[in-house]
Amino acid sequence: MKRIYWNAFEMNCVGHINHGLWKIPGNKRAHYKNLEYWTDLAKTLEKGRFDALFLADVVGLYDVYKGGLDTSIKEAVQIPANDPFIPISAMAHVTSNLSFAVTFSTSYEHPYGFARRMSTLDHLTNGRIAWNIVTSHLESADKNFEVKQYLDHDEKYDLAEEFLEVCYKLWELSWDNDAVSLENNDCYASPSKVHKINHKGKYFNVPGPHICEPSPQRTPVIYQAGMSERGRYFAAKNAECIFLGGKDIDTIKWFIKDIKNKAFSLGRSQNEIKFFMGLCIITGLTDDAIREKIELYKAFWSVEGNLAHYCGGQNLDLSKYEKEDILNGSKVTDILDNLRKIDGKWFRVITGKPVEVVNQIQSIIEETDIDGFNLVQFHSPHTFEDFINYIVPELQNRELYQKDYSPGTYREKLFYGKHEYKFNNFYYNPPKDI
Amino acid sequence: MKRIYWNAFEMNCVGHINHGLWKIPGNKRAHYKNLEYWTDLAKTLEKGRFDALFLADVVGLYDVYKGGLDTSIKEAVQIPANDPFIPISAMAHVTSNLSFAVTFSTSYEHPYGFARRMSTLDHLTNGRIAWNIVTSHLESADKNFEVKQYLDHDEKYDLAEEFLEVCYKLWELSWDNDAVSLENNDCYASPSKVHKINHKGKYFNVPGPHICEPSPQRTPVIYQAGMSERGRYFAAKNAECIFLGGKDIDTIKWFIKDIKNKAFSLGRSQNEIKFFMGLCIITGLTDDAIREKIELYKAFWSVEGNLAHYCGGQNLDLSKYEKEDILNGSKVTDILDNLRKIDGKWFRVITGKPVEVVNQIQSIIEETDIDGFNLVQFHSPHTFEDFINYIVPELQNRELYQKDYSPGTYREKLFYGKHEYKFNNFYYNPPKDI
Repeated sequence: MKRIYWNAFEMNCVGHINHGLWKIPGNKRAHYKNLEYWTDLAKTLEKGRFDALFLADVVGLYDVYKGGLDTSIKEAVQIPANDPFIPISAMAHVTSNLSFAVTFSTSYEHPYGFARRMSTLDHLTNGRIAWNIVTSHLESADKNFEVKQYLDHDEKYDLAEEFLEVCYKLWELSWDNDAVSLENNDCYASPSKVHKINHKGKYFNVPGPHICEPSPQRTPVIYQAGMSERGRYFAAKNAECIFLGGKDIDTIKWFIKDIKNKAFSLGRSQNEIKFFMGLCIITGLTDDAIREKIELYKAFWSVEGNLAHYCGGQNLDLSKYEKEDILNGSKVTDILDNLRKIDGKWFRVITGKPVEVVNQIQSIIEETDIDGFNLVQFHSPHTFEDFINYIVPELQNRELYQKDYSPGTYREKLFYGKHEYKFNNFYYNPPKDI
Repeated sequence: MKRIYWNAFEMNCVGHINHGLWKIPGNKRAHYKNLEYWTDLAKTLEKGRFDALFLADVVGLYDVYKGGLDTSIKEAVQIPANDPFIPISAMAHVTSNLSFAVTFSTSYEHPYGFARRMSTLDHLTNGRIAWNIVTSHLESADKNFEVKQYLDHDEKYDLAEEFLEVCYKLWELSWDNDAVSLENNDCYASPSKVHKINHKGKYFNVPGPHICEPSPQRTPVIYQAGMSERGRYFAAKNAECIFLGGKDIDTIKWFIKDIKNKAFSLGRSQNEIKFFMGLCIITGLTDDAIREKIELYKAFWSVEGNLAHYCGGQNLDLSKYEKEDILNGSKVTDILDNLRKIDGKWFRVITGKPVEVVNQIQSIIEETDIDGFNLVQFHSPHTFEDFINYIVPELQNRELYQKDYSPGTYREKLFYGKHEYKFNNFYYNPPKDI
């Protein structure tokens, strides 16, 4: 089997995906404000040999359902939501191999400050950083950040391309590999090896140079998650890892094929992109234990919370429609029924005893040729603990999960692992020592 | 004696203030890229009962001397310079009482994202955060961030006032103290207790609400460091702590008096602002040991580095002038002579055995009525270790240094300490439980 990659899916907030479940007694989601929540999580994940912690983020608010923010506030639907960059250095301090994929939108802040934050993270984690690029779509974020007024969806991707170009130039072009040489005690860095980037574009004009010296990876591993036509083109052009979301096998297959074709037409190799899908797992050692967990999640499930999330994401207020109305090709009543189910929203839910779960995972891998998964939580930290205790050993038996970490940076771990040695370099300016 | 506050002065870079000294064998300044540099430092400072780590920052480049950046790159004069926010959570994880004063300029990024980062830091450090507000003055930063083109000095303060107003509204007005109540298991927060801020101003229009729930301090402790007329007015209006820099006793006294007068005229009490000055100390147990250190620092001292720093800060290229020219009331040759001396640039240097040093500190306190010091480094971590080993015990004997930490947030430690109980609340909207 090929190497499969496993990420823990998280967000610096109370209600991320499966709304209502923060109320389960003992669920630690409301501890997101405490540093120990994050350091304990990181230690658990590294002990369990997770490849990375994937930190989602949203800077806007889900304020569409019932015409406002009330439901999101009641149900803690990604509000409050703290900054995802801040806890990373603490998690890096208590681990040595776990990587961190952090979401940042290209639509709201300037690339010069962002590139510096990322370089700093890459330095301090010793190369264990990825950037999940999003362009964002929530109007409230546009308003609160006062971005160049309300770019449309595709224009946000044009801006994202240029944002990324500025970052590539700062990360890859500005400082030569041998600009800093501590053996040369005459100077810290050689002026002739530090370059301005002189970027002049439609959205940005950045002379440079980068204010940071080269970090272990220079450019963080690039993740991307948007699934529109324009988003897939962007991903095919730029991403090393793509998070597809996805419940439906045929849709996943179609996305992978489409993006691989796009990548190929852009001159990239078919196999240099890793594809990830979201996955929810409910497991235990007995059918009774599994049934109990399912009943627990159903009991605390917040349909209202899921509605607020769905309506915000779709920019569509379902409360204004009749049950029989047709929206995006579906009856409103069917959408509502779907949001009522704990396996209803965005990700595939697999339930069963370890061998049953792993059988299903294996068949997903075989059917879709997927490379990895973002594991979604119901219950923190129980979901990850269950996975580590029950599922990982069976996955390891089938060589679907690493038994130990490979050395090196996150990029090296992803592309130079035991099972794959090929690395197709597509950087703007390839680091010279790779 | 009144309670005196002690901060360690640092920057996430190689060359901060005393240029050239990173080359001293064993000086760990070039380790700023490693997380352990920061966690070791934090542990040392907490063991030594420092009140806070003060993290300076600059997002521009010192590119004026000799018409470019070459000298700064050679001498590592605040380039490279990593982001100061990123290492804080790791340092918070290895300490429980040390506070962190972090510098952020109001001129380059939007308050909505900044307010969120600060709230996140305040949550995760459990209220051990201060914000050192600067407006910045380096043209290269204006260019790289493409700020509303080149506001003049005073306009940057107008913008800073409004930036701060937006932050106050997000931090203090948006969420009521009892908005989040985990006892009320019906909902995470009450919609009627989360408010938009609807800020409409000259520079910013931010509807809100804040995306973070209230953190322990809500507003971080406010530091300010600009010493111009407009800067002092800003400080008198907004600051809880003011970093004066300052070599000359009479200048310090005049600044303190002027700011206190301004604060009083703005309706604030004379004593609700803490004043800090920078201080360099070279000490040891014998005269020989002290002389050796002085000789070591002199041997590695970089006049070129100090010139690059000075010229960038003054926006004045000394290389273009003759020795006898007069600039800002001083002869060029005198400025140059001053930059050649290890006690020449910005901060007072005290040398001597512990009792001699503490005698001088005590007389500075008595003469100026200063409240605290930012201790400047020559040699990392030796400068702080010397201070902790040699100076702190003598300071403690004279009650000029805390023997243990007071409980609570940084603000509570500053204003409810053993020696002072009065707290003059000047918030935009006072937190209701203070």
